[in-house]
Amino acid sequence: MSAGERVRERLVVIGGDAAGMSAASQARRLRGPDELEIVAFERGHFSSYSACGIPYWVGGDVEDRDQLVARSPEEHRERGIDLRMRTEVVEIDVTGRRVRARAVDGAGEYWTSYDKLVIATGARPVRPELPGIDAAGVHGVQTLDDGQALLDSLRAATGRRAVVVGAGYIGVEMAEALIRRGYEVTVVNRGAEPMSTLDPDMGCLVREAMTGLGITMVDDAEVTKVVTGGDGRVRAVATRDAEYPADVVVLGIGVRPETSLARAAGLPVGAFGGLLTDLSMRVRGHEDIWAGGDCVEVLDLVSGRERHIALGTHANKHGRIIGTNVGGGYATFPGVVGTAVSKVCDLEIARTGLREKDARRAGLQYVTVTVETTGRARYYPGAAPMTVKMLAERDSGRLLGVQIVGREGAAKRVDIAAVALTAGLTVEQVTSLDLGYAPPFSPVWDPIQVASRKAAGAVRNA
Amino acid sequence: MSAGERVRERLVVIGGDAAGMSAASQARRLRGPDELEIVAFERGHFSSYSACGIPYWVGGDVEDRDQLVARSPEEHRERGIDLRMRTEVVEIDVTGRRVRARAVDGAGEYWTSYDKLVIATGARPVRPELPGIDAAGVHGVQTLDDGQALLDSLRAATGRRAVVVGAGYIGVEMAEALIRRGYEVTVVNRGAEPMSTLDPDMGCLVREAMTGLGITMVDDAEVTKVVTGGDGRVRAVATRDAEYPADVVVLGIGVRPETSLARAAGLPVGAFGGLLTDLSMRVRGHEDIWAGGDCVEVLDLVSGRERHIALGTHANKHGRIIGTNVGGGYATFPGVVGTAVSKVCDLEIARTGLREKDARRAGLQYVTVTVETTGRARYYPGAAPMTVKMLAERDSGRLLGVQIVGREGAAKRVDIAAVALTAGLTVEQVTSLDLGYAPPFSPVWDPIQVASRKAAGAVRNA
Repeated sequence: MSAGERVRERLVVIGGDAAGMSAASQARRLRGPDELEIVAFERGHFSSYSACGIPYWVGGDVEDRDQLVARSPEEHRERGIDLRMRTEVVEIDVTGRRVRARAVDGAGEYWTSYDKLVIATGARPVRPELPGIDAAGVHGVQTLDDGQALLDSLRAATGRRAVVVGAGYIGVEMAEALIRRGYEVTVVNRGAEPMSTLDPDMGCLVREAMTGLGITMVDDAEVTKVVTGGDGRVRAVATRDAEYPADVVVLGIGVRPETSLARAAGLPVGAFGGLLTDLSMRVRGHEDIWAGGDCVEVLDLVSGRERHIALGTHANKHGRIIGTNVGGGYATFPGVVGTAVSKVCDLEIARTGLREKDARRAGLQYVTVTVETTGRARYYPGAAPMTVKMLAERDSGRLLGVQIVGREGAAKRVDIAAVALTAGLTVEQVTSLDLGYAPPFSPVWDPIQVASRKAAGAVRNA
Repeated sequence: MSAGERVRERLVVIGGDAAGMSAASQARRLRGPDELEIVAFERGHFSSYSACGIPYWVGGDVEDRDQLVARSPEEHRERGIDLRMRTEVVEIDVTGRRVRARAVDGAGEYWTSYDKLVIATGARPVRPELPGIDAAGVHGVQTLDDGQALLDSLRAATGRRAVVVGAGYIGVEMAEALIRRGYEVTVVNRGAEPMSTLDPDMGCLVREAMTGLGITMVDDAEVTKVVTGGDGRVRAVATRDAEYPADVVVLGIGVRPETSLARAAGLPVGAFGGLLTDLSMRVRGHEDIWAGGDCVEVLDLVSGRERHIALGTHANKHGRIIGTNVGGGYATFPGVVGTAVSKVCDLEIARTGLREKDARRAGLQYVTVTVETTGRARYYPGAAPMTVKMLAERDSGRLLGVQIVGREGAAKRVDIAAVALTAGLTVEQVTSLDLGYAPPFSPVWDPIQVASRKAAGAVRNA
């Protein structure tokens, strides 16, 4: 090799959705095909799609599956990324710097070497080991393929009774989707209240709203069996106490990092089973392997602990950071504060930072306040109730967490708290923030500040 | 006076709206009538009302004037505040610690002594010295009395042509109100674009939207005369170049701090004519005099300079801080970042931090980017365009300002930037923020982060 000649490196990406393809695209932006060959493997039929959009596609808000696809395999290939669809990586050979790939339809298997590797294998839905769990009509909703299968199943089902197992984000969003499709919906939930990402006193408000929408909420209930008919199709969901007739079942119990490949290769995983990386998203101890998206654990900046959060917005950020670093630039992911927003029909749900049990686990002493106010000036048409719960550290007054349940404008208001948590502001400082005020958009004291004002009082009196 | 006996102090408050009555109420919460006598003077007919709500009352969104009143004089009196309505303070005697009050209807005049004084005299609308400016049918909209006079005038007017002079917040909100009342509206504006609180390239988007609503926008035009009829009522508004027929005229040219009393008493005012206070809202150099609301100048935390901002949310905060300090507690107002939100029908307008000319004036070198994105995931129904302009400091990358024009969800998104400005975050740090994401509420990259990502690139290349 003569001086000045460039080495062409090969980047291999495992996983063709948000994190993997953001990484590939960003690396391509920074380094042309002469410098960097990019090979990406995806075992499904789709690339770069919005999994978070699936409930809205199933519910009919989004008409066409293709609208959820940000960039098709062809578009990636046009940009110089060798994206191999329906091809699964079945082994990572870290020492040999190569991966073994296999066509999903069984057409062949081969080794591909890499100089740099990105692991973006995502998460897999929790699927309890229950009799009948594999019956026709029982669906996860993790991938676009899953969504398509569910929609096909809804078309095939003769009845209109749906059971959703789990009452987290996916569960409540799918309950809404099925209500919109005209189904009678029952949500079977292990916890005492839906949305265990909220404290129970706030989850209770979600249950009330869901019940008001005609959704049957079964709390404190563990599914013991999926009852099937002679045709092998689901008939009902059984708990210890009762049986709930079902023409279709949606599993929304949560997800776990998909890291079986990485673990088999000896890469480090944390307490939640997610890959552990440094701040540049490099897998710890491995100079040339990066990981991002739903398969990694991330640092929670409020508790100082690792967490697993499967969310498209983090996956996109990870991908961009990895691509920047692989492409010769420099970028880091400082961590998360645990922000999440959702809705059930017109009820908006938001949280950021720590719940009470998170604060206790982190060894923090805290005060908590809950306020009821409105999202607009009370006299402005459409002003609807909004409940804000806030946690602040005792003595220091540092903001620790916010949960909001309300109507229009409730969800994204949590961003104020998300930025304040990142900056380490106290509730007294939050009360002084210069937030947007006009009667159509906010009362003269923003709901977040109604809460922070009360929290500041609680801190002083603690 | 025997030991243990408490001195009963007298607090005098000048101005019975947001700042004054918040101060009085907060002081009363902390100190009972045995310790603190509170006397408040208000020259108008209303106390503690939302002046910001006036456009929505005039426009018909708010039906009843009383809805804008947060607390009536009677309610204040029931809480032990001696609120004297229709009574104007005409002199402050700082040395003698007393104020001279006069009934507006001329029924009498007297001196009242104080131990502590709160000045909350608000702002007065700019009223240019023009021929015909005092004609019937020409209205400011600063107070509830003004709003009532305008509504009476609309009922009295025979035609349906309105001219709004000025295209700032009040001007655009009043233009919407009058359109909703079925008027033909012309807005006559001195500047090249409406909303001079935005940079012209963003103001231009507001002009386009207003024109689309059927509002006639006359830019670069100075009013020279109000043309009146034989009945003394307005007929038209004249500029150097043209005459615009008008059955009613609304002045929305802006406001100035109402500090004539304070200046006559030798209290310190700044470059904008507003009272100067310390961080506890004490008038500088005067231990027992506080001031807050529209009559004071506030520190802009981004430019490091004093500004005058007339806004109910600041007035309420000032009042609470003053009341806390007067009541024996401790509270401070750190300053503002210049956040403001508004709307014209469904167009939302927001700004925070510095415009380009503010940055230049402050001696800052900056980069600027503008992005067009959507407030929801592109595939989600109702996803509408949103334009975000962002300023960042060259080299340091510190966020300096954000302006947003768009549809649903545009206005309050500026809060993300408002908190980030307060915390001194860089645009790179803004790009890493953990903001709420779900397709109905945001694209996977929030519009603020689409802008900050681009701004971070501009900073690196600057």
